[in-house]
Amino acid sequence: MNRSTDDKPVTPYLRLDVERMERNIQTLQSRLDRLGVALRPHVKTCKSIEVARRMLGRSNIGITVSTLAEAAHFLDHEIRDQIYAVGIAPSKLRAVADLERRGARLRIVLDHPATARQVADTAAAVGHRYEVLLEIDADRQRAGFAPEDPALIEAAQVLERGGCAIAGVLTHMGGAYACTDRACLEQAAERERSAAVEAAEALRAAGFCCDIVSVGSTPTARFATDLSGVTEVRAGTHVFMDLVMAGLGVCRTDDIAIAVIGEIIGYREHAGEWLIDAGWMALSADRGTAGQEKDFGYGRVISDTGSPDHDLIVRTASQEHGVIARRDGERLGAEAFEIGQRVSILPNHACATAAQHEGYRLHGSRSRDGDWWPRMRGW
Amino acid sequence: MNRSTDDKPVTPYLRLDVERMERNIQTLQSRLDRLGVALRPHVKTCKSIEVARRMLGRSNIGITVSTLAEAAHFLDHEIRDQIYAVGIAPSKLRAVADLERRGARLRIVLDHPATARQVADTAAAVGHRYEVLLEIDADRQRAGFAPEDPALIEAAQVLERGGCAIAGVLTHMGGAYACTDRACLEQAAERERSAAVEAAEALRAAGFCCDIVSVGSTPTARFATDLSGVTEVRAGTHVFMDLVMAGLGVCRTDDIAIAVIGEIIGYREHAGEWLIDAGWMALSADRGTAGQEKDFGYGRVISDTGSPDHDLIVRTASQEHGVIARRDGERLGAEAFEIGQRVSILPNHACATAAQHEGYRLHGSRSRDGDWWPRMRGW
Repeated sequence: MNRSTDDKPVTPYLRLDVERMERNIQTLQSRLDRLGVALRPHVKTCKSIEVARRMLGRSNIGITVSTLAEAAHFLDHEIRDQIYAVGIAPSKLRAVADLERRGARLRIVLDHPATARQVADTAAAVGHRYEVLLEIDADRQRAGFAPEDPALIEAAQVLERGGCAIAGVLTHMGGAYACTDRACLEQAAERERSAAVEAAEALRAAGFCCDIVSVGSTPTARFATDLSGVTEVRAGTHVFMDLVMAGLGVCRTDDIAIAVIGEIIGYREHAGEWLIDAGWMALSADRGTAGQEKDFGYGRVISDTGSPDHDLIVRTASQEHGVIARRDGERLGAEAFEIGQRVSILPNHACATAAQHEGYRLHGSRSRDGDWWPRMRGW
Repeated sequence: MNRSTDDKPVTPYLRLDVERMERNIQTLQSRLDRLGVALRPHVKTCKSIEVARRMLGRSNIGITVSTLAEAAHFLDHEIRDQIYAVGIAPSKLRAVADLERRGARLRIVLDHPATARQVADTAAAVGHRYEVLLEIDADRQRAGFAPEDPALIEAAQVLERGGCAIAGVLTHMGGAYACTDRACLEQAAERERSAAVEAAEALRAAGFCCDIVSVGSTPTARFATDLSGVTEVRAGTHVFMDLVMAGLGVCRTDDIAIAVIGEIIGYREHAGEWLIDAGWMALSADRGTAGQEKDFGYGRVISDTGSPDHDLIVRTASQEHGVIARRDGERLGAEAFEIGQRVSILPNHACATAAQHEGYRLHGSRSRDGDWWPRMRGW
């Protein structure tokens, strides 16, 4: 972590407002407390033990991970109860068994009888009892068995015959990100719940255990009104929030807890645009707001002078350059910024922007724990 | 760096074909040798000392960097002659002076008289003679003085009065990436050359030294037919090449030297699509081919069975999932892949995809130097 000689952090860097983060954690926790369901935070957004500990909350049932590197990292920090929520790649099964021997309880996920056969075969070969969640597809967007698919029961049979344990079902309603109104989000949450519960009932009717009924995404967690039959909710983006979430109505712009800080390096007078030393390497190439009502380019610029009367965005980005422009296409004048001025850029997608950085520089009044929280990465 | 127990690398990972890389390096070097101009390789694509050493070539005039972290890293590996080719942020000037005191010759770039004044002020404050390249704008796409802008001379005067040295001029023709034919690329290369040379002549006419006339990008380096007046060419992507470069006609698909290796984890039978354990975290969110004639989604899939008779792409990606589909929208059958099969995905944009990884796993017959080359990152 470099610092410039005058002790201002070297730009670009990722700043975390701990106060906003804790408010975001509390908001979701209160909501789930009212619905009577535990949170299993997804650490793929933060990839930070400091953040993950704060997300765990009172129920403290464990975490969701997106890579085996996360599983190992958080196990090293004594978080043992984990769901690896990406369909298992067969070549990773031995590493899963190794992590469980080191003390993890690492449930894996699959959605095809052919995968179940490979898991059963490896279980026999290495002498390990895998705990498996069957992934359920609520909206045909990504992965999972349809709840009524006979292949679901077939996979469970293959696993049980192969000495594995059926831990339950898991669903993720990715389609919620395409919603444009509250009714759509509430319906998405209900479809996610009902698909998981229907599949759990089908498994139980066929004689299988199904202790875990896991659903989740930040939008559905925010808009669910009933979680009957669900045992846990997975969410990760809620900890930081982002412009996509604000566009969905899941949060307000001033709930967004992370920002990339950059420095003004030039003025494009002919275009009425300013240059900043933050390009896609710092912001990510994620254009998540491109499909929303308000497209913020590569991020929304907040100047230190407070709320602007027009939206400023990073209109385009190369590796280490960003071009700041008005969202309405009008020119920015020579008085808008000064060379050397620092500005904050809110991320389209918190998971993607944070992944470009080695850690978080803390900002805000509650940063008592030191001023730098590292992130982990890799697979 | 994890390995699965059966000693296959954990997916997803970034594979580098050293033989293709060396061919790419040689192709550009031969071209520039014929044009009689030295190459100053840009290390922002590779961020690897092993790769950079191979790019330096016989002329060995030094490198181009995109961050001060690169400057420090490559200085630590004895590469002292550097151009930091992003407009200088004033708060970084003290760090530049520190790097020069450690042995670097690190030329900085600027494009505004206001920046020149801040450089001159800092030069006086810290007692350091900065060597400055004036950035020239050939196509109004990003940064730089117009060659005929009187502010160019004004900035040079401010710098010289402030005890700094004018090292020369630098231009980058980003607009070349929007070309769709050879004529456009040749014209772009000529515009880049002529803008730099015109600005150098203006500076010399005003009495300034202008030893360096630096131009470059991979497409213009490939298509330049005359580089009269130019002293060096900067290029970085040529070392790996990518689908965007292939789409521009700068290389062939089988020149692309890096690929993300992933493993098949599921079949979406209803959609005729397959799932892979490589999402945007491994591929990057760069959609660089979206604006080209052939849009490859998040990357082009090459199956191990050889050239398919239809193009396969990663149609969409979430953090750790990719969806493999036919580019023509037709269904992929249940026979297309098997769960557990490994496939290669060629990157849209080599700089962005490589940045998602901690290093390169070597592939190919000339991998004598060990099988892993680390990358550096950060600012």
